[in-house]
Amino acid sequence: MRTQVAIIGGGPSGLLLSQLLYTKGIDSVVLERRSRDYVLSRIRAGVLETGFVDLMKQAGVADRMEREGFVHDGTQIAFDGEMFRIDFKKLIGKTVMVYGQTEVTRDLYDARDAAGGTVLHECSAVNPRDLDTDAPYVTFLKDGQVHRLDCDFVAGCDGFHGPSRQAIPTDIRREYERTYPFGWLGILSETPPVDDELIYANSERGFALCSMRNDNLSRYYIQCDLSDTPDDWTDDAFWDELKRRIPDEAADKLVTGPSIEKSIAPLRSFVCEPMRWGRLFLAGDAAHIVPPTGAKGLNTAASDIHYLFEGFDRHYNDGDSDALDRYSEKALARIWKTQRFSWWMTTQLHRFPDQTEFDLKVQQAELAFLRDNEAAQKALAESYTGMPY
Amino acid sequence: MRTQVAIIGGGPSGLLLSQLLYTKGIDSVVLERRSRDYVLSRIRAGVLETGFVDLMKQAGVADRMEREGFVHDGTQIAFDGEMFRIDFKKLIGKTVMVYGQTEVTRDLYDARDAAGGTVLHECSAVNPRDLDTDAPYVTFLKDGQVHRLDCDFVAGCDGFHGPSRQAIPTDIRREYERTYPFGWLGILSETPPVDDELIYANSERGFALCSMRNDNLSRYYIQCDLSDTPDDWTDDAFWDELKRRIPDEAADKLVTGPSIEKSIAPLRSFVCEPMRWGRLFLAGDAAHIVPPTGAKGLNTAASDIHYLFEGFDRHYNDGDSDALDRYSEKALARIWKTQRFSWWMTTQLHRFPDQTEFDLKVQQAELAFLRDNEAAQKALAESYTGMPY
Repeated sequence: MRTQVAIIGGGPSGLLLSQLLYTKGIDSVVLERRSRDYVLSRIRAGVLETGFVDLMKQAGVADRMEREGFVHDGTQIAFDGEMFRIDFKKLIGKTVMVYGQTEVTRDLYDARDAAGGTVLHECSAVNPRDLDTDAPYVTFLKDGQVHRLDCDFVAGCDGFHGPSRQAIPTDIRREYERTYPFGWLGILSETPPVDDELIYANSERGFALCSMRNDNLSRYYIQCDLSDTPDDWTDDAFWDELKRRIPDEAADKLVTGPSIEKSIAPLRSFVCEPMRWGRLFLAGDAAHIVPPTGAKGLNTAASDIHYLFEGFDRHYNDGDSDALDRYSEKALARIWKTQRFSWWMTTQLHRFPDQTEFDLKVQQAELAFLRDNEAAQKALAESYTGMPY
Repeated sequence: MRTQVAIIGGGPSGLLLSQLLYTKGIDSVVLERRSRDYVLSRIRAGVLETGFVDLMKQAGVADRMEREGFVHDGTQIAFDGEMFRIDFKKLIGKTVMVYGQTEVTRDLYDARDAAGGTVLHECSAVNPRDLDTDAPYVTFLKDGQVHRLDCDFVAGCDGFHGPSRQAIPTDIRREYERTYPFGWLGILSETPPVDDELIYANSERGFALCSMRNDNLSRYYIQCDLSDTPDDWTDDAFWDELKRRIPDEAADKLVTGPSIEKSIAPLRSFVCEPMRWGRLFLAGDAAHIVPPTGAKGLNTAASDIHYLFEGFDRHYNDGDSDALDRYSEKALARIWKTQRFSWWMTTQLHRFPDQTEFDLKVQQAELAFLRDNEAAQKALAESYTGMPY
C-alpha cells in the first residue's frame, strides 16, 4: 500500500488533516488502533476556537456544527461568592463554538466516507519506520496480518500514548512536564445547563466548572483528590459539592439529575520538542497535553493541523518545503503560549495543597484585577477564543 | 504637646501626609527616629506613578520634581537576548516620573519647614498608646526626656521595623508573607545610563535591571544569591555579570565606572491586615512590603496616603467619618492588586532555584505573549503607571 501522507491516529486531528489534505488533492491513509464506535464513544471537551471553526469550514465539514453548535459570546468567572462575565464579543469581536469533540469526529468520519477516504480501524502494533530516510513507511497488524504502508511523510496524530512520539530518538527528544496535585471529577447529565455560558468557579472548597453539550445535556466538573475514584462520589454527593462551589445565584438555578457518565481525569501539562523528526510530524496530544481548564486540548491539536496542512499544501502544490521545514518551530511557538494560558487558568482557579495564605490572597487579587481591568479581560479573551495562527 | 494627627515616621509617607493635611488646615506632628541627614542618605527607588505625581502637586511640592525629574513614556523588557518596549503613553496615555525618593523626601522637608510644620528628629522609644480609646497618645524619648504627644489619631508611617504595626494586638493582626530565594545587588555609579528608559532583563544567568537617577547617575541591579555580600563583588565583577545578562545592543553601549554605593537587598512580599485598629492607621512599609521589581514600594505608600488623607479631610472638614472607617478595606483592595503585580513581575523576570524546565518554558512564553499581545501590554502599563485610586 502506498500513500503520500500516512496518518497515525483516527481521532479528530488525524481525520481533520486527512480531510484538509483531500481538499488540496493530497492523498492520505488514516490508521486507527480502535474501532470507530470506540472512538465515537470517547467524551471530550467541546469549546472550539474561532480558528478551529474556520478549519472545519475549510475542510467542508462545518454544516452540522453551524446548525447545531452553540455560539458563546462570553464566559462567567466566579470567585469569592460572586460572578463576573468576560464578554469576548464586546471586548475583541470574537466568539467560541460549543460543539462536542464526539460530534466533530463524527462529522469528519462522514466526510471521509463520502469522499472515499481510507480510514483503517483496529490497526495494532503500528510502527513508523525509516523516518530519517526519504522512504519512510508504517507497518501494522490488521485482521491477523502484517501490512506495510509506504509514504512520503508520517503524521503522528496518535495521542499521548501512541507510538509516534516514541519514534523520535531519546537523545533528540526533549520532554517538559508538569502534573497537578488534583483531578477533575466530571459528570454528564441529561439536564438543562445552569447557565447559557460556561461558569469557571474558584471557591474555597476548590474549583468547579459548569459546562454543557446542548440544551438538555450538561457537563459539570469539580476539582477532586487524585486518590478519589468515581465510586467515592454518589450523584447526590457530587451535586451537593458542586452547589457549594458555585455562587448562590447559580446554585439556586441548578437542575440536578442522574449522571449518565462519571469519571475522574488527572491534570497534566506536557510538551515534546521537536515536533518534527525527519519525515515524522507530531500533532495534537502526541506532542503536548494541557490541563482542561480553558478547553485548549482539541484547539491546540487544530493549531498543529493548521500548520501541518499548510506545510503539506505548499510542499505538494507549490513545490515549496519551507513551511514544512518550519513546522516544529511555528507550531511550538503557539503551543507554548497556549500552555501558558492553560497553566495560568488552572493556577488561578484551583486550590493547591501547598498554597500559602499569601498565595491565596494573590490568587484572589489576580481574579479581582481581571474583574476590574478591561485590558486583562481582553488578554484572556484573545487566548480563550484563540490566538491567531 | 497636642496635635490632631500624630504621625510616626518622617520618611516620605509621613511627610507627605503631614504636608497634605496642612493644605486642609489639619494639624500634625511628625516623630522620626533618625536624624534628617540620615533619612536623606537612604537610597531608594525613584519611579513614581501618575497618582503619586498628582499627590505631590496637591501637596504643593511638585515644582522641583517637574523641573528635574524625567518623564518616562515606556520601559524596555529583555528576554532571550532581545528587547521589546512597552509604550505606556501610546498604549494608555500615561507615563511615570523618574525622580529619586531622596529628592521627594528633601522637597517634603523643605515644604514642611517653609510651612512651620513640626518634624521632630531623633525620637526614640516611640510608643503609641490607648489606640482603642478616644484619647490616644504617643510617648517618646528625645534629648534624654520622655515626651507625650496627645492626639485624635495616630498614623503609623514608621516602616517595616517601626512600633506601629506591633501595637495592633496579635489576635487581630494577620500577616501574609512571601520571601524570595535571591537578593538584588545594586550599585550606584556616576555614569550616563545605558538607555533613556529602564531595562528589565530576564536572562539565563538571572535578572538584571538598568535604572537611573539622572543623566550622569545610574543605578544597576543584578539578582544575586542571598548568601552574597557586597564585598564578594568587585566593581569589575559586577559590570561583567551585568553585561552578560542584558542584550548585546545594551551591553555594547554600557558605560562603566567606579561604584559610589553598593549594597544587597533581600526581596520580600508582606501584607498586614487590618491597616486600621482603633485610632491607629498604618501606611506604607509599616503595613506592607513589595519586592522591588516594578518599583511599587514608594507608590503603594502614596496610595495609602491618598486614602488616609481623604479620610482625615472628610472627617475634619466635612464631619463625615465614612472614608476613614473604610480606610483599611479601600487601601488593602489596591495593595493586594499591587502585591500581585510586584509578585508577577518578580516571578516572570527572575530565575528561581526550584524552577523546572517546564516552568522556565512557561516563563518565556509569558514574556513572548507580553511581547506579542497588546492587551497584555496594556494590562502591564496600567499596573506599572499606577491603577486608579
